[in-house]
Amino acid sequence: MSFQTVLVRGTGLLGTSIGLGLRASGKEVWLSDPSQVAVSIAADIGAGRVWNDERHPDLVVVAAPPEATAEEVHRALVRHPEAIVVDIASVKGSVLDELRQFPGETDLTRYVGTHPMAGRERSGPVAARGALFTSMPWVICPHEDVAEETVAAAEELARLLGASLHRMTPAQHDGSVALISHLPQVAASLVASRLQNAPQQALGLSGNGLRDVTRIAASDPNLWVQILTYNAPAVLEILYGLREDVNQLIGTLEAPRAPGGQADIAQLIAEGNAGVARIPGKHGSPPQSFTVVTVIVDDRPGQIAALLNDVAEIGTNVEDMRMDHSAGHEVGMVELSVLPGRAEELAQALTHIGWKVVLT
Amino acid sequence: MSFQTVLVRGTGLLGTSIGLGLRASGKEVWLSDPSQVAVSIAADIGAGRVWNDERHPDLVVVAAPPEATAEEVHRALVRHPEAIVVDIASVKGSVLDELRQFPGETDLTRYVGTHPMAGRERSGPVAARGALFTSMPWVICPHEDVAEETVAAAEELARLLGASLHRMTPAQHDGSVALISHLPQVAASLVASRLQNAPQQALGLSGNGLRDVTRIAASDPNLWVQILTYNAPAVLEILYGLREDVNQLIGTLEAPRAPGGQADIAQLIAEGNAGVARIPGKHGSPPQSFTVVTVIVDDRPGQIAALLNDVAEIGTNVEDMRMDHSAGHEVGMVELSVLPGRAEELAQALTHIGWKVVLT
Repeated sequence: MSFQTVLVRGTGLLGTSIGLGLRASGKEVWLSDPSQVAVSIAADIGAGRVWNDERHPDLVVVAAPPEATAEEVHRALVRHPEAIVVDIASVKGSVLDELRQFPGETDLTRYVGTHPMAGRERSGPVAARGALFTSMPWVICPHEDVAEETVAAAEELARLLGASLHRMTPAQHDGSVALISHLPQVAASLVASRLQNAPQQALGLSGNGLRDVTRIAASDPNLWVQILTYNAPAVLEILYGLREDVNQLIGTLEAPRAPGGQADIAQLIAEGNAGVARIPGKHGSPPQSFTVVTVIVDDRPGQIAALLNDVAEIGTNVEDMRMDHSAGHEVGMVELSVLPGRAEELAQALTHIGWKVVLT
Repeated sequence: MSFQTVLVRGTGLLGTSIGLGLRASGKEVWLSDPSQVAVSIAADIGAGRVWNDERHPDLVVVAAPPEATAEEVHRALVRHPEAIVVDIASVKGSVLDELRQFPGETDLTRYVGTHPMAGRERSGPVAARGALFTSMPWVICPHEDVAEETVAAAEELARLLGASLHRMTPAQHDGSVALISHLPQVAASLVASRLQNAPQQALGLSGNGLRDVTRIAASDPNLWVQILTYNAPAVLEILYGLREDVNQLIGTLEAPRAPGGQADIAQLIAEGNAGVARIPGKHGSPPQSFTVVTVIVDDRPGQIAALLNDVAEIGTNVEDMRMDHSAGHEVGMVELSVLPGRAEELAQALTHIGWKVVLT
């Protein structure tokens, strides 16, 4: 069984984006939200029609904040006894636990939790885009009571929106996101919070290292309170290990020239080397080290395009690209990551055309 | 007094790059290194001539690892009683302390510590480039005994190599780099080391957040042992604060629904928001929030150039640019950061030309 009519409950950024994407796939979408303003905006921008109580959808997508998710899922299962219900909250185990605690029989064969790993800086329906999920991971988390057709519907939903499908248990999901999403968020916030009272002259030395580590520290506090609260057990398990490592490093640095001290520090950095090397590369390919070719460009419109035009004519595929921000200068550095075998010829060709190539 | 002849002691990446840059500025450069192989390579690629004992330079640049720096500076001050001596180690206070502990009178009026904040993934003379320091910060750290002409020579050196000058005391420098360089390195290594034994399926969900936070975890263990050892007091002061924050977060997550728990988490994230907002923007301008316009491109040569060409024709200046790597798909997302006032027109214009604009 496939679904044709969908009720999206919650028309924030994600719910509205789902509505837009499903409409583009020819599905019939109804929208509902506790805020009449939010649902009107979502309908106005084409995410679907405002729901009225008489309609029964094939599929309900609960796109509520984590703390409201279980209640909304339960309500949808009761109100729409024929519908499949999915939620998209970024924590899964605790939502399922809450669902199981509702009094009376809840038909969990028709429910499956999912997590589309997409988002953006802005929130609300105005920020929504139908292509928000394109090529982003979407985790489907079947539980022991779920029916296979429920899982199939959730997978169809993710596929329709162009996402990349992953299947895990709720516990696997929560452990995974604690590690690859919640830990980095906590670390970025911890580092960035140390900058609050930093002297301005220290911040003037900031480079890409600091910028990279702290970029996600700009996240929304309200959302993260819910995520960390709901995923507290999995996050705690990782933080206990982190605390142990911090304590060990502090102990080592308190007597850095004691026997074994330098080996301890080297081991921490080497373990970091080993860990970062395991992060998959582009398109899920094995981790791959690229060679960086750095080019100096003037900071004016068209320079980067001109550079990349020349790179394209040379025929080299750019795997990653970064701009280096340095304080006090009106020139920039563009870092082009290319396959190691292509770096030397690219650097030579660019130099030949007249670009200032800094690093090859 | 200005310098004309320079002895670069230590022909690794930084020393050789300094030689190349100074040669390009018309200075006479001599090279020396404990490794005859290293100094031959540096001379072969044009960084200067191999030094012989009879020459006396105007300026000695000690480009040794932190642990060898004080001894090399002391030796240079004794051997070349007319020369100005600078070092470029990435820690400054402990080098000065070591210098003061040599027996006998050391003429510290002719010495000043400096720190060019530049580097790259590869090391050794082969990786050297004369433009390595272009538009990067170069910190000059005068101490109480230094002569003004020594500081002037160090500043001339940095300026000749195109760097951006910063002046601080050694203590200010060490506190600053502990915060904006050593803390991010430690945090990145701590997070990345947690990935060592992570299930492959968890790593398959990795996004740009994790990649950003862990990028610098790929650094050289040997170098970081020295940096963290030599700057242990300043790093420790920051790690004590970090440990306190980690402990508080753990306490909160152990009872996340206790009174005040959610407020504690919100405060950590909000403090991170406040800290990251203080990092200066491009060209040392005040921190500025850009709006991100995301465009979907095919993963083949020329696509990004074509996109940026169109952006240039529209006339919008790109302040930052990133490529979004997603597992499992042969399309990429290019994130263009532009001034908030330019985002809407850019998005509309790109859409009009036929680009798939995801986010505005």
